[in-house]
Amino acid sequence: MPGLGEYFALSQPNINKLRPFAVARPAFLDGADSPRAFLERCLEVIAARDGEVRAFVTLNIDQARAAADESAKRYGGNRPLSLVDGCPVAVKDIIDTADMATEMNSKVREGHHPKADASCVHALRRGGAIILGKTVTTEFACGVSGPTTNPYDAARTPGGSSSGSAASVGAGMVPIGLGTQTAGSLIRPASYNGTYAIKPSFGAINLGGVHPVCGTRDHLGVLGGTLEDTWRTAHHISAVGGSAPGYAGLAGGGELSPARKPRRLAILRLGGWQETDEKSRAAFDVLMQGLRTEDVELLDPESDQDLAALDAAAVEVETPARDIMCYEMRWPFQAYLDAGHELSDTITGYLDHSAEVTPAMYADALAARDGLRARFAAYAGKADAFVTLSSSGPAPFGHAFTGSRAFQTAWSVIGFPTISLPLLAVDGLPFGVQVMGFGGADDGLAAAARWIDEL
Amino acid sequence: MPGLGEYFALSQPNINKLRPFAVARPAFLDGADSPRAFLERCLEVIAARDGEVRAFVTLNIDQARAAADESAKRYGGNRPLSLVDGCPVAVKDIIDTADMATEMNSKVREGHHPKADASCVHALRRGGAIILGKTVTTEFACGVSGPTTNPYDAARTPGGSSSGSAASVGAGMVPIGLGTQTAGSLIRPASYNGTYAIKPSFGAINLGGVHPVCGTRDHLGVLGGTLEDTWRTAHHISAVGGSAPGYAGLAGGGELSPARKPRRLAILRLGGWQETDEKSRAAFDVLMQGLRTEDVELLDPESDQDLAALDAAAVEVETPARDIMCYEMRWPFQAYLDAGHELSDTITGYLDHSAEVTPAMYADALAARDGLRARFAAYAGKADAFVTLSSSGPAPFGHAFTGSRAFQTAWSVIGFPTISLPLLAVDGLPFGVQVMGFGGADDGLAAAARWIDEL
Repeated sequence: MPGLGEYFALSQPNINKLRPFAVARPAFLDGADSPRAFLERCLEVIAARDGEVRAFVTLNIDQARAAADESAKRYGGNRPLSLVDGCPVAVKDIIDTADMATEMNSKVREGHHPKADASCVHALRRGGAIILGKTVTTEFACGVSGPTTNPYDAARTPGGSSSGSAASVGAGMVPIGLGTQTAGSLIRPASYNGTYAIKPSFGAINLGGVHPVCGTRDHLGVLGGTLEDTWRTAHHISAVGGSAPGYAGLAGGGELSPARKPRRLAILRLGGWQETDEKSRAAFDVLMQGLRTEDVELLDPESDQDLAALDAAAVEVETPARDIMCYEMRWPFQAYLDAGHELSDTITGYLDHSAEVTPAMYADALAARDGLRARFAAYAGKADAFVTLSSSGPAPFGHAFTGSRAFQTAWSVIGFPTISLPLLAVDGLPFGVQVMGFGGADDGLAAAARWIDEL
Repeated sequence: MPGLGEYFALSQPNINKLRPFAVARPAFLDGADSPRAFLERCLEVIAARDGEVRAFVTLNIDQARAAADESAKRYGGNRPLSLVDGCPVAVKDIIDTADMATEMNSKVREGHHPKADASCVHALRRGGAIILGKTVTTEFACGVSGPTTNPYDAARTPGGSSSGSAASVGAGMVPIGLGTQTAGSLIRPASYNGTYAIKPSFGAINLGGVHPVCGTRDHLGVLGGTLEDTWRTAHHISAVGGSAPGYAGLAGGGELSPARKPRRLAILRLGGWQETDEKSRAAFDVLMQGLRTEDVELLDPESDQDLAALDAAAVEVETPARDIMCYEMRWPFQAYLDAGHELSDTITGYLDHSAEVTPAMYADALAARDGLRARFAAYAGKADAFVTLSSSGPAPFGHAFTGSRAFQTAWSVIGFPTISLPLLAVDGLPFGVQVMGFGGADDGLAAAARWIDEL
């Protein structure tokens, strides 16, 4: 077995460190640091790196500076609006902003200026956060990829569809990025760019003003430089912006729960393990060995038949999950086409399948998903959480293909919460570990993830 | 007891008859009539009446004529696209249309040109229906009223928020209008304008491209000149446009089910009965007596304690229902305000309440609604459907107040289907009867409503 260090060291020499906000924030109160100075440090990294990384579509620097100065006054008066007051945020460009065009990497939305902020952006602005810019997305978060490169190696993909948000956080340009996930669009880029990410339970965050892909699978999630920043931001958005209609908000408090050691974790292989190279598998095994050393009991599909069956069922759900997505994509994508707009072959391919999904097939697909969700929920008595890789190793070469979704889709489809921790590396390139919980228990999941992160 | 006739005669001399489409359609196939000729008859009524009624915000006459000519060619070749091919449709102006501005009776949306049709409009266009124009709505379907007058008496309200769609159908300008209902916005104007209306089970019709008020209470519904046209249109929209994400489509087939006599109906009084004048009550009683004569068993809250308790519970749900609505209105309405847009006092009043609704209150309100829905669902063994007035009598005088919602809210809140039949009149002014069913059983409800309608 190789030495531990090999799987945890990031070797890229010119990479910036992940940028924490909560660590800097206390110094805003006594004036040793300020939101404006923090923002300027972000802008320096953007100036240095974004020519190559190309994370941002739009930057609103003047307004960001003005907002930072306002925030500084609040801190100076010891009356910050929230834990995210003064925090610069990068926003995926399928999320509406009232002050910046929202173009979704599609000609359909060229020059589109929304009348209002999306719910998540609105909630952040209410808390004093600084909406610094819009980041590259794949076309409508489900089509062709954009120009962003991986900050660890420009020849590699940053992942998608939340490409720019993940790359900007990974490159240390901003402490927080907003992304979305319908299949693997948040967790995969988090993995490839070495960031934290929380995809909350389905419905915990209101998706108003976020362009839909698949209404029953779309999630808003947060990418961050630390788990603490990621949690604080996600919780603020849910508490102020509200949950999705009919759903509960993010469980837990505004502060990240204290670390809590999980008693027992269940390893999932999903469809991704077979795609994963030897070195990346070994990195995961080393981490799991580390957990065992700390007396965390680990179940795995190789030795637990129930878990193996569940793992296989999670792979099989891909077929009904595709029916669900394509059926729900009919609007607005077919309506765009019929109105004479252009969409990529990727999206028209989904629509071709959509035309074949009858209401009865859709009902069956929903039932299959409900069944899988119930089976995973029933596992709550057996393990505190599930654990698997966030992606099948580090980012692959190239930019057209944003990487495999085989490790990420299942938890999007059943709508349970997952947290990606940037704990692993191979050849100096980062990738993550997912800690995956049960629906509505996001705070407990975060406590377990924190414990693993602090190990 | 007064004679029957008094409660069924419409006396307004210059009113046009409701305009059926399904009756005209067969003659399109042999060329005795045509979609273009049908459209021209609609345009004549619009020219004659809309100066006073003011149902339309926008008319797209050139494109409608072109679409009618295309439809005529299809009928001439015996290949109509659907049962609604060639049917002129009036669309409430909170529903997106790619070819017409969608301004929602608000400065916020002035000049707003959507990139795509809403799902319902898209589905209709795919079926060859003619999207003739946009109709007056109250501000965002929940604020101040628009300029529309009641076609039976211009001094009276047409009801709201689907004011223009209901008035245009009621005045015989078009056979079909699209409306929406969060509280009473479809059924009340249907009642006041003497039209049919179907508010399907929650989720049966996709709401993509319809401006939201309250995500768990918003419904798209159809107003029509006959029950047959209303059903065909609603079913076409659901079948082609799809259901809301996660929900089943409209049960039943594309054709209205054959009439089926209900064995037992349960009368509800809701909050509206106490607001209803003597004459309107008497009209309802006469209709109920007519049902008894046909051996339909009628339960009523005066003689059935269970039903009385249920009736009272439906009134009590108004308080949690308001919490639900205001919580879900936070986005986009608060975001509009924060972006510097103007909203009416009505809407900012809702937002003031929204600020007081905590996540825990929202969760309690959802639970209260779930409880009421379950109680009504459990009544399925006792009655085939519920029956009540569609409004507390005919349209009141004035235009600022669009009428009481006390008869309509409950079925919007629990999301069960309801059908309004324009069966009653007092002093020549129409009002309707609601036949209210169980979630997902829209086709059976339509069969019962048809039987009552044909009585």
